[in-house]
Amino acid sequence: MMATRPERIAYYNGEFLPENQIAIPFRDRGFRWGDGCYDMARTFNLRPFKLKEHIDRLYRSLRYLRIDLPISPDEMASISEEVLSRNLHLLGPREDYWITQRISRGVDAAGDEEPFRRGPTVIVECCPLPYRSRAHLYFDGIDLLIPSVRRTPPSSLSPRAKSGNYLNHTLADLDVRSRNPQAWALFLDQAGNVCEGTSNNIFLVSGGRLLTPREQFVLAGVSRQTVIELAGELGIGCEERDIDLYDAANADEIFLTMTSMCICPVRSFEGTLIRASTIPGPVTHRLQRAWIERVGCDFIDQFTRTLKSGSEVA
Amino acid sequence: MMATRPERIAYYNGEFLPENQIAIPFRDRGFRWGDGCYDMARTFNLRPFKLKEHIDRLYRSLRYLRIDLPISPDEMASISEEVLSRNLHLLGPREDYWITQRISRGVDAAGDEEPFRRGPTVIVECCPLPYRSRAHLYFDGIDLLIPSVRRTPPSSLSPRAKSGNYLNHTLADLDVRSRNPQAWALFLDQAGNVCEGTSNNIFLVSGGRLLTPREQFVLAGVSRQTVIELAGELGIGCEERDIDLYDAANADEIFLTMTSMCICPVRSFEGTLIRASTIPGPVTHRLQRAWIERVGCDFIDQFTRTLKSGSEVA
Amino acid sequence: MMATRPERIAYYNGEFLPENQIAIPFRDRGFRWGDGCYDMARTFNLRPFKLKEHIDRLYRSLRYLRIDLPISPDEMASISEEVLSRNLHLLGPREDYWITQRISRGVDAAGDEEPFRRGPTVIVECCPLPYRSRAHLYFDGIDLLIPSVRRTPPSSLSPRAKSGNYLNHTLADLDVRSRNPQAWALFLDQAGNVCEGTSNNIFLVSGGRLLTPREQFVLAGVSRQTVIELAGELGIGCEERDIDLYDAANADEIFLTMTSMCICPVRSFEGTLIRASTIPGPVTHRLQRAWIERVGCDFIDQFTRTLKSGSEVA
Amino acid sequence: MMATRPERIAYYNGEFLPENQIAIPFRDRGFRWGDGCYDMARTFNLRPFKLKEHIDRLYRSLRYLRIDLPISPDEMASISEEVLSRNLHLLGPREDYWITQRISRGVDAAGDEEPFRRGPTVIVECCPLPYRSRAHLYFDGIDLLIPSVRRTPPSSLSPRAKSGNYLNHTLADLDVRSRNPQAWALFLDQAGNVCEGTSNNIFLVSGGRLLTPREQFVLAGVSRQTVIELAGELGIGCEERDIDLYDAANADEIFLTMTSMCICPVRSFEGTLIRASTIPGPVTHRLQRAWIERVGCDFIDQFTRTLKSGSEVA
Amino acid sequence: MMATRPERIAYYNGEFLPENQIAIPFRDRGFRWGDGCYDMARTFNLRPFKLKEHIDRLYRSLRYLRIDLPISPDEMASISEEVLSRNLHLLGPREDYWITQRISRGVDAAGDEEPFRRGPTVIVECCPLPYRSRAHLYFDGIDLLIPSVRRTPPSSLSPRAKSGNYLNHTLADLDVRSRNPQAWALFLDQAGNVCEGTSNNIFLVSGGRLLTPREQFVLAGVSRQTVIELAGELGIGCEERDIDLYDAANADEIFLTMTSMCICPVRSFEGTLIRASTIPGPVTHRLQRAWIERVGCDFIDQFTRTLKSGSEVA
Amino acid sequence: MMATRPERIAYYNGEFLPENQIAIPFRDRGFRWGDGCYDMARTFNLRPFKLKEHIDRLYRSLRYLRIDLPISPDEMASISEEVLSRNLHLLGPREDYWITQRISRGVDAAGDEEPFRRGPTVIVECCPLPYRSRAHLYFDGIDLLIPSVRRTPPSSLSPRAKSGNYLNHTLADLDVRSRNPQAWALFLDQAGNVCEGTSNNIFLVSGGRLLTPREQFVLAGVSRQTVIELAGELGIGCEERDIDLYDAANADEIFLTMTSMCICPVRSFEGTLIRASTIPGPVTHRLQRAWIERVGCDFIDQFTRTLKSGSEVA
Repeated sequence: MMATRPERIAYYNGEFLPENQIAIPFRDRGFRWGDGCYDMARTFNLRPFKLKEHIDRLYRSLRYLRIDLPISPDEMASISEEVLSRNLHLLGPREDYWITQRISRGVDAAGDEEPFRRGPTVIVECCPLPYRSRAHLYFDGIDLLIPSVRRTPPSSLSPRAKSGNYLNHTLADLDVRSRNPQAWALFLDQAGNVCEGTSNNIFLVSGGRLLTPREQFVLAGVSRQTVIELAGELGIGCEERDIDLYDAANADEIFLTMTSMCICPVRSFEGTLIRASTIPGPVTHRLQRAWIERVGCDFIDQFTRTLKSGSEVA
Repeated sequence: MMATRPERIAYYNGEFLPENQIAIPFRDRGFRWGDGCYDMARTFNLRPFKLKEHIDRLYRSLRYLRIDLPISPDEMASISEEVLSRNLHLLGPREDYWITQRISRGVDAAGDEEPFRRGPTVIVECCPLPYRSRAHLYFDGIDLLIPSVRRTPPSSLSPRAKSGNYLNHTLADLDVRSRNPQAWALFLDQAGNVCEGTSNNIFLVSGGRLLTPREQFVLAGVSRQTVIELAGELGIGCEERDIDLYDAANADEIFLTMTSMCICPVRSFEGTLIRASTIPGPVTHRLQRAWIERVGCDFIDQFTRTLKSGSEVA
Repeated sequence: MMATRPERIAYYNGEFLPENQIAIPFRDRGFRWGDGCYDMARTFNLRPFKLKEHIDRLYRSLRYLRIDLPISPDEMASISEEVLSRNLHLLGPREDYWITQRISRGVDAAGDEEPFRRGPTVIVECCPLPYRSRAHLYFDGIDLLIPSVRRTPPSSLSPRAKSGNYLNHTLADLDVRSRNPQAWALFLDQAGNVCEGTSNNIFLVSGGRLLTPREQFVLAGVSRQTVIELAGELGIGCEERDIDLYDAANADEIFLTMTSMCICPVRSFEGTLIRASTIPGPVTHRLQRAWIERVGCDFIDQFTRTLKSGSEVA
Repeated sequence: MMATRPERIAYYNGEFLPENQIAIPFRDRGFRWGDGCYDMARTFNLRPFKLKEHIDRLYRSLRYLRIDLPISPDEMASISEEVLSRNLHLLGPREDYWITQRISRGVDAAGDEEPFRRGPTVIVECCPLPYRSRAHLYFDGIDLLIPSVRRTPPSSLSPRAKSGNYLNHTLADLDVRSRNPQAWALFLDQAGNVCEGTSNNIFLVSGGRLLTPREQFVLAGVSRQTVIELAGELGIGCEERDIDLYDAANADEIFLTMTSMCICPVRSFEGTLIRASTIPGPVTHRLQRAWIERVGCDFIDQFTRTLKSGSEVA
Repeated sequence: MMATRPERIAYYNGEFLPENQIAIPFRDRGFRWGDGCYDMARTFNLRPFKLKEHIDRLYRSLRYLRIDLPISPDEMASISEEVLSRNLHLLGPREDYWITQRISRGVDAAGDEEPFRRGPTVIVECCPLPYRSRAHLYFDGIDLLIPSVRRTPPSSLSPRAKSGNYLNHTLADLDVRSRNPQAWALFLDQAGNVCEGTSNNIFLVSGGRLLTPREQFVLAGVSRQTVIELAGELGIGCEERDIDLYDAANADEIFLTMTSMCICPVRSFEGTLIRASTIPGPVTHRLQRAWIERVGCDFIDQFTRTLKSGSEVA
Repeated sequence: MMATRPERIAYYNGEFLPENQIAIPFRDRGFRWGDGCYDMARTFNLRPFKLKEHIDRLYRSLRYLRIDLPISPDEMASISEEVLSRNLHLLGPREDYWITQRISRGVDAAGDEEPFRRGPTVIVECCPLPYRSRAHLYFDGIDLLIPSVRRTPPSSLSPRAKSGNYLNHTLADLDVRSRNPQAWALFLDQAGNVCEGTSNNIFLVSGGRLLTPREQFVLAGVSRQTVIELAGELGIGCEERDIDLYDAANADEIFLTMTSMCICPVRSFEGTLIRASTIPGPVTHRLQRAWIERVGCDFIDQFTRTLKSGSEVA
């Protein structure tokens, strides 16, 4: 499919190749065990946002996983920029990219044989943001449901490493979608506290202030950090602390932060509509506008205009 | 490497192909998230052992992970037999195969695009057992060390599903090998009980009886089950219960069960030599002999003869 | 409403009164704090089933709650029989009663005043079984969902006491019904194990055997005990042990036991249809038939005939 | 009893009635399951203190419990004021009232019948403070004992909701009183931290600063909040954090806050006299005086004068 | 004091010495860190009871603590017999001894200096049983109270090793005695289950059967094991399982087992009298008689006759 | 050994005696149960450092353990100064002392006998610092390994009391040394967070700021407090919070604080070299220099000069 469009170029172990020429050996530890990590930024107006922060986090994940990567953070940034620049001509007007670095520990040997290749597997690739499937969420808000599985505890695998082991997330997503196909999963941690979504962070607005879970049990999202910074600039208080179902039930507004959509409002939490009478609520809206101003790109419009005339943007 | 040998054939999504022609797309969920599961049997005298039990467990893993596979268990067994039969001519004398079925949930879409392919990814492949690297362990025994990470709890991802999320195992292995390159990791569970190794089960011999952890926190090993059956036949008591460091410190013998080596003795547990004066201890030895008798294949000799003249077997 | 029917008679602190003449003071500790307990049996063919077992359990609840009741278990049984006999003429043909004993610790004083009355509050009352609202579940099976709240731990209030503190249950029910109005809640306990419903016990059928959670974290249901006895008589194995989501995902059949419906099949567990191709599955069906035979009352027909011609039975 | 006094008036579902004309149906969910919540303020000089804060907390409890109340917070405040005003003439000189709003979810149906009434049950009532029974505690201090039950965890039912499920509290009180009839219970939470009493909050004075448990595991007392405010005004540091038995053993002073007595000193904690040589200790005393000044009512004198000539005040 | 009596002889590091000539260096790790373990048997009719079982347990404690003792279990038994025989002449008529083996890891060095002595410290000593202080408990029963501290978990230090670290016990004893000077402490474990006393094991009698906590969280008492054996001989069922406060509240009888008194009845548990109308209850009594018969020594009479004429026995 | 040197003088229950004349009775509760506590300061230039802080902490330990000591804190300080002054002549040039106060609860009775002595046992003693054995660690850094045992939880025995129950520490030390004889143990707490060493506290340097575990689960080290103060003076941020393995893996520097060595750099954490390229890292170095300046004693030189010419200093 997509045969008439030129194929995107990605980086694979030292080469820039068309995406469909990249072939992972089936004994790659990424494929066998999810033994790797990744990070993912987005562009605004075709420039990657906080790429350094994303790459620094990637190297913290690598260090936690004890993967030695013979590529420096600066080289990784250059490769990422190069991948973007080779694919810019494929974008439609006002579109932006997700840019992903993914590293696995490399290829396993078969029995006593020599492994097929030594050293980590590295892929850097980009793809357009999911404009059409997510655009309506800016208007409708997200329905959050709590899955029956709890977030993996740091004592087993730290949620702060953006790893390739996301079955915990997949089980959570499938669980909540079996009840409501539109719902998004929101994890509780092992202690029963509100934790994170399956690739996003949660904020509550309560009495005009922001509450968000402490970093130990969640991925320290770059978007989460951006909201904390914007809140500081806007004079909105923000506290990182344990949050539970009582807090969520009584929140005035709730929103999620994530790389693609930046800040997206929540409509309901475990079946209860949030208190605010508008979507987004007023504090969520202020933060969205502040972000848009900061990056000079109206990401909400970028998503939602696809709802009007789908064919133009595809 | 291995260039002069004919390449093994594996099954990949409906086709039997040479291993090096199998290419996993980098957006396969197996590669991105470890979103899949597998099972792994071995042959004795070229016949797969308890293949049905392994495949039944595979389908339990699939069901737990909510992966719908359009292949029946019987078909999966046939494919496995076919893969074996296509590769038998590559084995040396008295060698046996590992045979593995691996399923991922399939390929992710890029943004709003159609995914490259729909439905699960299926690979069935075999490879020779790791005779030379592990043979000495039958004589020397394994040194078990407890890693700083705890086994993932069932509330996050059940250890009973043989999944593609084994970063927990990898961290454990790297941790103990950083202290002793020969050591094997032995997990504690979240409650601090002795749990399992990173692809094996543990048994203690205490007062002539076997103790092994309850199934909830460990993979229900087919080899573990075989030992329970053999113990029954030999009149050796066997209890599944919580086991802790006091039990381990005072065990007379300890052994691991795993598909490749069946029963392998342990020399030391967290730095303390086990009590038995021989390796293997007498109960371990009886169980090994019973297994050999049952399958009609001296797996110990199969491994350890490679120590004598490596070149013959390679 | 119900004005044209003669009113049921209930027992209240020593008197047999029409139900609408019973008035609980608003400072009763039952009303203020849920400070009491109860038990609930049903009749088959107008005779109470295992009334002694229910009353014994009631007195265990009382003892756990340190409520001294100046009524003996035998007197309580007599009062219960009397309440039934005074209301039998109100039943339709082939109908049966629920019979409930409810005790609160009594009435609180206001400040330093004397309390309005001293000693426990005792009510014994009966009402018809919920035939019409539940009948379809014998055919359709119950959809079980796991709520976000966990069952109260024994260290705070033992689930084995049938107490008047059921907000935990109410929150669970409201939670799952906000997603699916027909769903029933199935608790996990604090450790993440499958626990109990909000007034029923769960059984899994796995490999032809029954599994049910250990008694410590659940109410020791009289119906649950009856199933254990019937299974023994039918030669069906039954094990009480920790059960988790992996067990539930792989169960062949699941059913609930409760006083009103005895044994009711489950259709889906957390969004996944159970494996058995019929509702009820074959083992569930055998147990239902054995129960019907034992009590000489086809409780399934009793419920489901109300689906045919509602007006007759109301 | 009290026959010669005119009876207090309370509000019950839309009507103002003499207390003894209010009759709760025995199928009210408040009586059956403790399915409701309440809040409780007191007056100083006949004016309710922080009534808005109490009512706001009541509505947070309602929202957490998913009870929709067709009465606005402002209406609830008016009703409360009205109840007070209708009963003021019954008070003795210098006496004040407790004023309570209590809501249950309403009345359960019997089987398939229509429920007796739909919608929540609402009672607003007042009663004199327990002057005589508690007065001596201002002089003697309270003896705190730790019960064998732990405070219900937020994962089962949030302690922050002032609910009708207080069996946990009742078990705690009965437990400690079985050892010392004068003792008050002080809960530990599930993690073993010092938590709260059975309707009061605890403060430690350590090195001149206040310590009090974090809000997540305790009711966020209005009196607790008042002390935090007063401490701020007096320049006394106050930290909300996890507190354990080591902290309590080494505290200089300990006091409880509660609606009736505001601030009451503790004499001993789990059998050990506190360090301060006076009761109350100096910091406790300063806070008491600051509170008295703030409300213009010497609540200590109000209580303790009843010790001198009981007959005048009754 | 005791100057007019000949002094007992004890074994200390290879010598048999009068007790008052034994001097532990203050840098002994036993004194500094409680770094050691012990075991304690008693005699019946001057013969040690189950000495081998006690010494085997001592060597399991040593192995768990990684203390290498250059004395064999047989030698330890001989030393113990020798200590007894050297002190028999000091006993009054019909008196028996406690006999204790205590080992510390040895003496610490001061800074970089050589330690004063190398190798473990070994003491074997005996003393008369506490007849007079405990005799009344056979008649009155023991009052059990639950302390605020929980038993140390196996993940920190296994309760199955009879170690020299008993501050946990001391805190528990002091805690309950601060409330009731006659009470004995009964630990809960970290999960809130009934655990053990501060040197004794607990049994419940429920429906004619014995219940006692599983071994993992308690010392595996030799007296506990003796009761299990006697119950087997008497046809009394006995189950080792998790026990909680609901079980205790509803037990018919409760008793403790310990080396000195063998089986001693409990009168009350956390302030509630047990159900049985006699002390000891009937099952407790049968087990006491069976034990007396087995050892040929009426230990109850041995204790209680001291209540009649104290001077004879001292 | 040391026979030609005059012996050090220590304080023992009211007397100043040569160390070898101090003899602890074997029934001392310190020796039997580790039932006591201690504190330990060091001198700089022969003056004790923060002696008051150490003694205050000692009395907090005593109070937590409910040991009543008939000696005031001031008297204890005087005794400590006296012990030092009586032993100063024994020191080599530029050497300093450790000074230790150790209290046990006293001597147990044997059976019904009177105890040998009543009241606590008190020892105050000094000894030279371990210069030679530890000096190299300032250059090489410490290798930290995580033991299989977890730190005893506050619910069993608070780690904030410097008690005589250190088997938990001993097991940890033996465990890690069985893998690497040079390694030091670093506990995780029961929740899996980084906790403390076996008599030291840990600090991480991350992004130029200090992180150290909260006080509840660790001993509140006087050296730890000194570092917090020095950091404040140097304008280095310092946060007390939960720290886990992800933090440790990504720390720039790690160091331990302890009385003897003040601040000692860490080389590796669980087998991974820390990030900083020098030992000590730059922030660690700044803190060391600030400490040296504060006390006017170059403790690093004091230790490391012993590496050059061992004979001078011994």
